Amino acid sequence: MKRGEKLDIAGAREESDIAEYGLRFDLTIPLSRFYANNISQLPMPFKSVQVGPVWRAERPQRGRYRQFIQCDIDVIGEPSINAEVDLIRTTAKCLSSVGLKDFVIRINNRKLIEALLVECGFFDRDFSGIMIALDKQDKIGIEGVRSELNGYSAEAVQRLIDFLNEGVETPQGVTSIFKGSTPAGVIALIEDLDVVMDTVRSLSQGNYEIIFDPSLIRGMGYYTGQIFEITYKEFPFSIAGGGRYDGVIGRLLGRDVAACGFSIGFERLCEVLELEKLVEASQGDRAIIFVEEDAQSSFAYGLAVQIEKDYAVVNVLRKLKNHHRQLENLYAEGYRAFYYPTETGYQQRVVEFDKV
Amino acid sequence: MKRGEKLDIAGAREESDIAEYGLRFDLTIPLSRFYANNISQLPMPFKSVQVGPVWRAERPQRGRYRQFIQCDIDVIGEPSINAEVDLIRTTAKCLSSVGLKDFVIRINNRKLIEALLVECGFFDRDFSGIMIALDKQDKIGIEGVRSELNGYSAEAVQRLIDFLNEGVETPQGVTSIFKGSTPAGVIALIEDLDVVMDTVRSLSQGNYEIIFDPSLIRGMGYYTGQIFEITYKEFPFSIAGGGRYDGVIGRLLGRDVAACGFSIGFERLCEVLELEKLVEASQGDRAIIFVEEDAQSSFAYGLAVQIEKDYAVVNVLRKLKNHHRQLENLYAEGYRAFYYPTETGYQQRVVEFDKV
Repeated sequence: MKRGEKLDIAGAREESDIAEYGLRFDLTIPLSRFYANNISQLPMPFKSVQVGPVWRAERPQRGRYRQFIQCDIDVIGEPSINAEVDLIRTTAKCLSSVGLKDFVIRINNRKLIEALLVECGFFDRDFSGIMIALDKQDKIGIEGVRSELNGYSAEAVQRLIDFLNEGVETPQGVTSIFKGSTPAGVIALIEDLDVVMDTVRSLSQGNYEIIFDPSLIRGMGYYTGQIFEITYKEFPFSIAGGGRYDGVIGRLLGRDVAACGFSIGFERLCEVLELEKLVEASQGDRAIIFVEEDAQSSFAYGLAVQIEKDYAVVNVLRKLKNHHRQLENLYAEGYRAFYYPTETGYQQRVVEFDKV
Repeated sequence: MKRGEKLDIAGAREESDIAEYGLRFDLTIPLSRFYANNISQLPMPFKSVQVGPVWRAERPQRGRYRQFIQCDIDVIGEPSINAEVDLIRTTAKCLSSVGLKDFVIRINNRKLIEALLVECGFFDRDFSGIMIALDKQDKIGIEGVRSELNGYSAEAVQRLIDFLNEGVETPQGVTSIFKGSTPAGVIALIEDLDVVMDTVRSLSQGNYEIIFDPSLIRGMGYYTGQIFEITYKEFPFSIAGGGRYDGVIGRLLGRDVAACGFSIGFERLCEVLELEKLVEASQGDRAIIFVEEDAQSSFAYGLAVQIEKDYAVVNVLRKLKNHHRQLENLYAEGYRAFYYPTETGYQQRVVEFDKV
């Protein structure tokens, strides 16, 4: 919306009339626009970090909110798979550093999917419809995908379903679909996937996994090469996702620029960390300094400054009338050190409750 | 907006028709609503930390954005000035921990301002209009305030302007305005301000200041007691602000609950830190690992994992054709360690440029 421009509410008849003035749905498109507008001032390659809110017009449910925070990293101007390795290793390092272990990085390649679809007998114009059907596979199953594909060439659909039923687990495994010899372009894509997987595996030191997932599609239509997602145990949603989008900047700039990005869903990560109890302060790490009602508090806060290097949390609280109840509640919250005012200063008292 | 409810675009004639479906303008009102709805499950006092985006329908300018991030802390259910001390010390600790020094905390009390206005001869119904005029004092000056107050009792305005011209610098100083003896309520407010200032001063260890500022008003109408703001050197905006809002929860719950909050403006703080160069990684703290075009990168990333404990930033980059230019740019960005591939591994080369 341009500066000074007003919403034409009187002229609007439905939501789509004002929808283009709406809120951003990801950070990738705004970054591409920024890059296209400032390319001459930016280094090559350009590596960016962004954290910010984005919006979806969807029904809110667990792990899917109308507003959520994306944590994006992108490498623009690097056509080699070094960009992919860089982004995957940085995202994995970030997840490890907040305490997450045993997550699974899934990887696939949009160009590889397209080559398989061509081999099955589909046309370019069918790709986006088939991708939408394939993307639902984890919810509707392989037979569900088959019924979604009603209307396309029956033979092509059958070959695709046969391939899905094979349960291929390595990039090399996809060559089974090719009746003749595997095209050189496909072999190059398989090699790239192998190199990325081997490199990430050697960097993981066994703390996380990377697997090839031929059913991985990713919703966004703008991906053009390798795509990835990170899942964690039985959580029904991915906590990070991304891929190569070499064509997006070209649409704005007139010439294509290599680009690749990875994004962590902040709320989803928080949910996983909370449920796995990876964010709680440890017991005994928290202290309370009590003040009597209407007492001078400067002495209490002076003590707080002194002891706060010894505890993760130091809290100054007024001593309530029902002090035993107050203590029980604080104990349940993990407080173990309690300081009481005396005539000459403060004294620590040890409080013990039976384990709840 | 209720679930499933649609914007009535067709029925809307101006922006205010849909404005009530708009975006939150602060975190205080939503917190108060949350507290009122969940009071029975929440501890007493309830201390909260919130970080999130808020919106203003204002013309964007430096330090004033349409969307910005607030970092709020609040204490609900603590009527004593311990809440104020707690919030001020925590906010100051937070600013100190990101490297800011010599900021100034300004403090005043809305009840004290009201008592002064009554003594001058104004009525309760005049308060909000007069506060708006006083709030502009730093922009329009004392004589500007006088002309804004055209229409109120000339004698009352003159007494107020005389008071402003006095340039009172201590809470005790305001007693000069009272013709008879100072009311007991005012003396109590002055004592509270003195205690808070003394306590904060003793905690500051000389790293920041707290001063009484009788011209401090704070925009929000909901403040009922002590109010505070933090400014930094010549920056034309405050980087934090807050105060006591004992009446807000009462409007939702039917009975008043003591509440006090302090909020840091995230973007403003970032701007200060950037301009003061408090966020730059130190020179020599950054390393580059070069890879040759199309080279296997797993070895480079393995090295990155090995050396990243020694540097703040380790970056793997393709060696560009114009390598001298690339090195100059990286040097200017603060990189001092450069690793080059050899036949058997990697070798660090020291690169020196003349100081730019």
